[in-house]
Amino acid sequence: MIAFVNGDFLPDDQASIGIGDLSVQRGYAAFDFFRIRNNRPLFLDDYLSRFFNSVATMHLQPTQSREDLKEIIYALIAQNNAETSGMRLIFTGGYSPDSYQPVKPNLIITQHLLNLPSAEKFDTGIKVITKEYQRDLPTVKSINYLMGIWLQEEISARKAEDVLYYKNGIVSEFPRANVFMVTRDNKVVTPSENVLRGITRKKLLEWMSKDFEMEERNIGIEEIKEAAEVFMTSTTKRILAISHIDDIVIGDGKAGPMTRKLSDAFVRLENQVLGLPA
Amino acid sequence: MIAFVNGDFLPDDQASIGIGDLSVQRGYAAFDFFRIRNNRPLFLDDYLSRFFNSVATMHLQPTQSREDLKEIIYALIAQNNAETSGMRLIFTGGYSPDSYQPVKPNLIITQHLLNLPSAEKFDTGIKVITKEYQRDLPTVKSINYLMGIWLQEEISARKAEDVLYYKNGIVSEFPRANVFMVTRDNKVVTPSENVLRGITRKKLLEWMSKDFEMEERNIGIEEIKEAAEVFMTSTTKRILAISHIDDIVIGDGKAGPMTRKLSDAFVRLENQVLGLPA
Repeated sequence: MIAFVNGDFLPDDQASIGIGDLSVQRGYAAFDFFRIRNNRPLFLDDYLSRFFNSVATMHLQPTQSREDLKEIIYALIAQNNAETSGMRLIFTGGYSPDSYQPVKPNLIITQHLLNLPSAEKFDTGIKVITKEYQRDLPTVKSINYLMGIWLQEEISARKAEDVLYYKNGIVSEFPRANVFMVTRDNKVVTPSENVLRGITRKKLLEWMSKDFEMEERNIGIEEIKEAAEVFMTSTTKRILAISHIDDIVIGDGKAGPMTRKLSDAFVRLENQVLGLPA
Repeated sequence: MIAFVNGDFLPDDQASIGIGDLSVQRGYAAFDFFRIRNNRPLFLDDYLSRFFNSVATMHLQPTQSREDLKEIIYALIAQNNAETSGMRLIFTGGYSPDSYQPVKPNLIITQHLLNLPSAEKFDTGIKVITKEYQRDLPTVKSINYLMGIWLQEEISARKAEDVLYYKNGIVSEFPRANVFMVTRDNKVVTPSENVLRGITRKKLLEWMSKDFEMEERNIGIEEIKEAAEVFMTSTTKRILAISHIDDIVIGDGKAGPMTRKLSDAFVRLENQVLGLPA
């Protein structure tokens, strides 16, 4: 695939960055990731708004405007012609002379093939473990995944596929996804605080509230284990059921009726946005 | 200066790493940093022990042994001939196919000129602010400095030079340095928990306890503001007085007598280790 680094289009396996960059030295960079279907970016303006918000909050001065980025993005999509894929945008802390103070960012854009979860995976759902942890600067999408990656070994050892963070008894999110629960009286609830504002999460809250009762509020770690259904939302997974939290079976231990309805509705929304048949 | 990247010695301004490396993608890498005086590394074995401990805790499989690293380190020191300098070792999460699971690490070693604080700076000390925060995996030296770097703007705005972290009322450390206080009855105390095991800290505790009363224990955030003296220890600063915490003047607001004694003793220790005149 062709990547874009600071003004150059080049094959991604030949694209590099100097070792003095603040991402390599101090893990300091803002990023974002959106999905491409039929060679068209989904909800691009939402992702770009979040990206520029992350960049500003991290005190980075973007070297390209939103319109510049769009131009590069569409040029990459045309060159790579990877109909179903994802694109990652990174503004790093730059080549900092003291390896600490951010300077002029480096821009890295890459495109990747992407497979959404299979129908079987969607039906089965996944097991997750829980961990007391709060991400730093939760509304910012930074490259800091120290805890999420470090926990991978424990996740595998416990035969799970992801980890749900909570703090002081209140659930927040997965390292790379938001969490929703369906209550026994059919309310669809997601944590209101200390989470990344996921774009899939945002679209559900915006678009589904005409047909379903949607709510943002605190959710207790014990409460979520008693929910009728639990699912995660993310750019790379859309909506995916949680079958087990720690060793507790959630609902029927597979994708429940509300999870299916919302997932179907979300796919319809995507199709509508792209002008495809519902 | 010459750097070393995965087997190659090359000028650091020409040294690069592929954009797929997990440091760039996810801020995931272990590192360490030691000082060089008279072209000789100081306390190298202590730093290498800590580095390999960080690497193992982060579930990375080092591609070089301790002896391999020493050979490269001495070769770089000979080539660069930068008598007073620092050297940084980084094992990254590698070129991860899924941009998440660590694989074979990339090794990056760089050397940098280094100036210790001036005599005037040592006398004056520095002002620091405080912030409620706890580093993830505190005993590991990872490249995750999201919070430390993000706070730089507030530190500057408040005319300070660093930030002291505390959590639930208990002091831990600075983003890149340990903290010590001298009590009014002349005990030298440093936090015992949730801190990086700094090598300067370690040397003080090991070597100074024959002449001074040294103690590791919890220190309250209010207690430290009442201390007779407060100082930081780090590889790049040795021992540096803290003159103000938030807007509280510490002791006489400059380097105190115990800070001076310990600093002199530490320089003597360095000289002794290097076989230089005391």
